[in-house]
Amino acid sequence: MKSLQQLGEFGLIREIERWITPSDPDLIQGIGDDVAVVQFGRKYLLLTTDVLIEDVHFMRSWTNPYLLGKKSLAVNLSDIAAMGGIPKYFLISIGVPQTLSFTFISSFYRGLKEEAKKFNVDLIGGDTSLSEKLMINICLIGKGERGKLIFRKGAEVGDDLYVSGTLGDAALGLKFLEDKRMKKKPKGLIERHLAPTPRIELGQALAQQRLAHAMIDISDGLLSDTQHLLEESRVGARIWEERLPLSKNYFRWVRRYSREPYQLALRGGEDYELLFTAPKKVRTKISSLSHSLGLPVTCIGEILPENEGLQLIHRNGKIQVPTQLGFDHFLKTPGG
Amino acid sequence: MKSLQQLGEFGLIREIERWITPSDPDLIQGIGDDVAVVQFGRKYLLLTTDVLIEDVHFMRSWTNPYLLGKKSLAVNLSDIAAMGGIPKYFLISIGVPQTLSFTFISSFYRGLKEEAKKFNVDLIGGDTSLSEKLMINICLIGKGERGKLIFRKGAEVGDDLYVSGTLGDAALGLKFLEDKRMKKKPKGLIERHLAPTPRIELGQALAQQRLAHAMIDISDGLLSDTQHLLEESRVGARIWEERLPLSKNYFRWVRRYSREPYQLALRGGEDYELLFTAPKKVRTKISSLSHSLGLPVTCIGEILPENEGLQLIHRNGKIQVPTQLGFDHFLKTPGG
Repeated sequence: MKSLQQLGEFGLIREIERWITPSDPDLIQGIGDDVAVVQFGRKYLLLTTDVLIEDVHFMRSWTNPYLLGKKSLAVNLSDIAAMGGIPKYFLISIGVPQTLSFTFISSFYRGLKEEAKKFNVDLIGGDTSLSEKLMINICLIGKGERGKLIFRKGAEVGDDLYVSGTLGDAALGLKFLEDKRMKKKPKGLIERHLAPTPRIELGQALAQQRLAHAMIDISDGLLSDTQHLLEESRVGARIWEERLPLSKNYFRWVRRYSREPYQLALRGGEDYELLFTAPKKVRTKISSLSHSLGLPVTCIGEILPENEGLQLIHRNGKIQVPTQLGFDHFLKTPGG
Repeated sequence: MKSLQQLGEFGLIREIERWITPSDPDLIQGIGDDVAVVQFGRKYLLLTTDVLIEDVHFMRSWTNPYLLGKKSLAVNLSDIAAMGGIPKYFLISIGVPQTLSFTFISSFYRGLKEEAKKFNVDLIGGDTSLSEKLMINICLIGKGERGKLIFRKGAEVGDDLYVSGTLGDAALGLKFLEDKRMKKKPKGLIERHLAPTPRIELGQALAQQRLAHAMIDISDGLLSDTQHLLEESRVGARIWEERLPLSKNYFRWVRRYSREPYQLALRGGEDYELLFTAPKKVRTKISSLSHSLGLPVTCIGEILPENEGLQLIHRNGKIQVPTQLGFDHFLKTPGG
């Protein structure tokens, strides 16, 4: 009998998938993606849930309740964005330590409310409880149209592989937070970790204009989430390290923590950027979409047949087959 | 500035309601009920969420993972039952201590799966995380038809007040679990605490036949949940203590813990029975429905005008206005 440590988070999810076999004919997409899709009348209903737990996902000492409120919703919005759906409603369960100040809670809800307003979603219910550690669970409901949703599966050999924004900033921001020797923390990257921006507009545009074949948001890390997309699509891919979009701030600070400057961009989590594949013929459309949204979209690789696996082209031109792809909650804890 | 302890759980929920003002015209019922109702195409979408946290809602030492799996879903099913809705799908977020055995998790999912099968609902998604304490959050999605849903509001002066099943069994079962001097724990009541039965069939029948005016499930305790129903309906009520349906087991054991034998039936939580109001003219219909379901349904009181408040008629005929109605997580912890 395997232990949970040996099994890991993804191993546990695979076990759970084996135990549960949904039977409903209206179920379009169940466990296996971040978002479940259900036919409801003529529309598709999208459902996703994410939990944030103190000392696992965040440290209360270094977070800011206002940004935590925004992030709690943002990580769910990002899942809906990765499908090109329209987020609509959410429910929040919150476990509150008895000693938590009322000011903390009200700042948290102020951030939550602002994020909700920004993305036009309504809080419609929830549950509150006492808890030793602060715990936040959000269940977000969205809608979508048949034929205008993008899944993890669907990537085709020959597709370009794109990523939005810049990579590794959130992971580097986390390093700053953890860095006890650093007295004055540089601005910018920490905010990328504490308050990621869900790429709702980009996701919706890609879905509405039917530009992308497959899509996922980068929560676990570029390599790890690329692997998820490849597995669901049953394809391989090649990624050029030197093409990874990195911010100026990232370049400036990354060597403080890593001799390998691409490490955090490849394996660090929580960027919440979109990773998607699209046929070569829509290159100019994607470029003008990127322009009109004011959001960089970079081609970092291409889709290969499944037997080619996931290949990383190092700056020196050598092909690597990456092994440790990213981060597993059950194998290692952040900030610890 | 009030602290959370002074505010209490319901106080916090009221504050949250003030902070958040949903704007969507499709929102039929938002925060304030256990279930949110949203118009989605021609149907109503029902959404509810409940969190169970170790050492707050259950003690790992005395629970049984199989029954915990069933209960996690049951408490959510009960919310949908209280509206007369049809439960369809659920998402589960689970926070797992690193030391938890794989056997515990697989028994938990076995219970969850069995409860899901029994009530014909599908697990369609979720999130897993590491957590210091075991934490389970379920978000359950159901559907309903316009005009065939029952809310907390809607009770009318002159209505009978009914309750299903028997009261206080779950609270007494919890006393057994907490009772360190009790070597051999009697069967029956503990199971009522660990594995409550959601009254889905009764709720749906009452809604489909349009028999009830207002309904709620009893999770906080009879008096506390009656108060919630009265507030939403803007009415008062009179409850006759001697009419409360009590089980043989309850009668046999309750005096071990309380000199007031109705105490636990009035204020103890987690029975997950249905409390509803219905006009006098449907008495025979309700009686035959109770018969056909093999589930006792007892008239325990009547609905009065709002200014009469909530009145409890003691066995000696005296009218009491109950003060401490039930249980608030922020004011007291169970098992402690």
